[in-house]
Amino acid sequence: MLVFRRLYCSSQRIGHIAKSHKPGDSLSIQGWIKNIRRLKNNTFLDVDDGSTSRSFQVVVPRNAETQSLTAGSVISAVGQIQVAPNGNFELHADRVESLAEGHLQDGYPFTPKQKHAPEYVREHLHLRSRVDYVAAQLRVRHKAQKAIHDYMDELDFVQINTPLLTTNDCEGAGEAFRVQPDSEKLLKQMARPKVPPEESYFDSKVFLSVSGQLHLEAMSYGLGNTYCLAPAFRAENSKSPLHLAEFYMFEAELAHLDELEKLARFIEQMLKSITNRLLETSSEDLHFCQRNANASSDLPWLNVPWKIMSYDEALSVLLANKESLKTPISLDEGFSKDQELFLVSHCGTPVFVVDWPTKQKPFYMKISRTNPERVHALDLLVPAVGELCGGSLRESDAATLSAHPQLPKDLAWYVELRKYGGIHTGGFGMGFERYLQLVTGVKNIRDVIPFPRYPHSCKM
Amino acid sequence: MLVFRRLYCSSQRIGHIAKSHKPGDSLSIQGWIKNIRRLKNNTFLDVDDGSTSRSFQVVVPRNAETQSLTAGSVISAVGQIQVAPNGNFELHADRVESLAEGHLQDGYPFTPKQKHAPEYVREHLHLRSRVDYVAAQLRVRHKAQKAIHDYMDELDFVQINTPLLTTNDCEGAGEAFRVQPDSEKLLKQMARPKVPPEESYFDSKVFLSVSGQLHLEAMSYGLGNTYCLAPAFRAENSKSPLHLAEFYMFEAELAHLDELEKLARFIEQMLKSITNRLLETSSEDLHFCQRNANASSDLPWLNVPWKIMSYDEALSVLLANKESLKTPISLDEGFSKDQELFLVSHCGTPVFVVDWPTKQKPFYMKISRTNPERVHALDLLVPAVGELCGGSLRESDAATLSAHPQLPKDLAWYVELRKYGGIHTGGFGMGFERYLQLVTGVKNIRDVIPFPRYPHSCKM
Repeated sequence: MLVFRRLYCSSQRIGHIAKSHKPGDSLSIQGWIKNIRRLKNNTFLDVDDGSTSRSFQVVVPRNAETQSLTAGSVISAVGQIQVAPNGNFELHADRVESLAEGHLQDGYPFTPKQKHAPEYVREHLHLRSRVDYVAAQLRVRHKAQKAIHDYMDELDFVQINTPLLTTNDCEGAGEAFRVQPDSEKLLKQMARPKVPPEESYFDSKVFLSVSGQLHLEAMSYGLGNTYCLAPAFRAENSKSPLHLAEFYMFEAELAHLDELEKLARFIEQMLKSITNRLLETSSEDLHFCQRNANASSDLPWLNVPWKIMSYDEALSVLLANKESLKTPISLDEGFSKDQELFLVSHCGTPVFVVDWPTKQKPFYMKISRTNPERVHALDLLVPAVGELCGGSLRESDAATLSAHPQLPKDLAWYVELRKYGGIHTGGFGMGFERYLQLVTGVKNIRDVIPFPRYPHSCKM
Repeated sequence: MLVFRRLYCSSQRIGHIAKSHKPGDSLSIQGWIKNIRRLKNNTFLDVDDGSTSRSFQVVVPRNAETQSLTAGSVISAVGQIQVAPNGNFELHADRVESLAEGHLQDGYPFTPKQKHAPEYVREHLHLRSRVDYVAAQLRVRHKAQKAIHDYMDELDFVQINTPLLTTNDCEGAGEAFRVQPDSEKLLKQMARPKVPPEESYFDSKVFLSVSGQLHLEAMSYGLGNTYCLAPAFRAENSKSPLHLAEFYMFEAELAHLDELEKLARFIEQMLKSITNRLLETSSEDLHFCQRNANASSDLPWLNVPWKIMSYDEALSVLLANKESLKTPISLDEGFSKDQELFLVSHCGTPVFVVDWPTKQKPFYMKISRTNPERVHALDLLVPAVGELCGGSLRESDAATLSAHPQLPKDLAWYVELRKYGGIHTGGFGMGFERYLQLVTGVKNIRDVIPFPRYPHSCKM
């Protein structure tokens, strides 16, 4: 790492100063001026370089040069670390060089020191990373992904890049995006007999992936445990604060898994572990996000065992509390968000609802051998967001799978996996943005992803 | 990790046995039988669980039960670790339980013990992970991604999930895929005045990303150093062994970067470091892939300084060696693959070609202030694959950028980044699959990605 620093950057990032420096050390920093105060002898600059949500003060003697500095300008400052009266480190700079002017008066949408609403900030997507709480959220997002990769790698899972272009639309339901070359010329050039012209690139209709699960399964049949953390796409006309057209799914497939409870315990351990890792690497940013979202910094679910409850039990609880629910209970569909949150609150912990009605769940879930009306499926319900994960044991019997009325055509390959030395597998999918909402308390999913895509909005 | 093993799996993965066990230890494994030999008293099984390319032998007393075992079957074996005559560990099992039958005679496309050509194996994509060299390749791919994430995280880069749906097609050239909801009903439902019906979901024409660079830049203007390792898409009608319609790009943007040579040195350090990490975690799999591809296990470029050469020098070398080249030299386009490999061979090391003609490169590259005919751009050329990385300093001056004749319309946001406290940045993009080809020696890019997508082929 030293080689890198020597070769590439001579400056220190502000987020590391407290860890790696002591008072008296000389160093240089580069960053944007967030705020300026001018006293009689000195100018005080709050400087931000994107590495921390904590503000950092540079003190520089007042002179003609500092007089021309404005908020938003990029500076380079060289000096010595000192301890400020509040106990924080600050930089006493001999000189400050202006690298670029801020021009904030010429149409910059954000006012330094003023807090802007997320809806307003979102309108200026290209400049959003300069807003302190957005930057903190993006650093948390990075570290959460890192924690997932570290955890899964330690457990010997193989990350698989499941394809985003696929001929299969998994759970169907007409919510897929279709993909084709933009160039009509190319489509014509590639035309083949009996292939519709718009499908000539791949000789078939191609969609954006809604889940990597089926592809992960194929890989687990050779590699053992696998996972992916990849974009998924849904063409829904939803304005909900929990849905995006492009979002990230963390999915894993566990080989030789034959009990649903083991899957539930795996998910619980994993979520507690990655969250503890996140608290180790990013507590300052996490708390900054939580404060900004007016959310509690307390994550009580980290330290208690999570409950497991059958669908039938969950339904009884809801039926017994009809009056407290905002939505009617349906026996044909899953629970509403309101009902999910009621169950979480009723249990006092996150809760796995298991053993779902077969008719409510997709074709690939393992049907109970003792009660064919039930599948070995689970939904994990958590505070604030409701459903965070869905998972199941997979139907391992080729004949049962083939006979399923909802088995999509073109999935002969999926059935065939079971034929040659088939293994028992099970797995789950987690909406990665919902996890970020859970830990940061951010209300709208559009604010935990750098470039949100939703109905009537695809900026940049 | 212990908690996990206790909760979830009672079996040991074969790849870990040599590291974590000693002769005499009891353990159980689960996996597929690759091969069976029956001697007088004992049956010898080669068992594979997807965790290693090294074969693992289970010795079990010959009896009625082992008599019925066949290649391809899934077994569970419990016994004690012993040292085999060849010095490797093997499992002396008290019993072997058959968990599922192989049925390899009923249409399984691969013959145990026979080596099949990659083209043939590729035809059976869903079963491909059961082929030893494909599994090894996928494990290497996983560890290479892990090495990149670890390295970039240590250097404080923030991973950004750049959007795959974008209104911008970056370098244009009509090679983008177009995206729209598959449901006509949804498109009608979302119709708005003055918006073409097929664009009603986003109110605009939307493409699959061909690069995350411009979006990374926007993020670096707030966060500092950023990177992405994400899918990118090109709708080209190319059958080349170096091109895919869906591939992975590793891109990074370095803040406060003002010299092209620093970028070159960063790339060199990074590639050497991640390759050394890969050799630490995956040498067995790497060498297995190399042997299988008839490639050398020697990576001489790891231990020498890489050369830097200007475009003009590179051109002179090529012009002086016209007779040795298979392709004509063009002054309007870059070098052909043949010419790239000639330069690598001429230099005896990977080589950065720098300072390219302005007219050959895209609008965002920084124009030399001393010679406007040149941009601060680099191509990294390496053995076997030719161009591995492309990078540049970015044009930081809003006026120069605005005046560029190739600046796409709708990129006002990109120019505006430079207006408010603009910083100097530079970065690169690397085709991740080409890197895997470089280190494993695999000839065809379709064999280093789990689900290759190319003209007329999008299986599963």
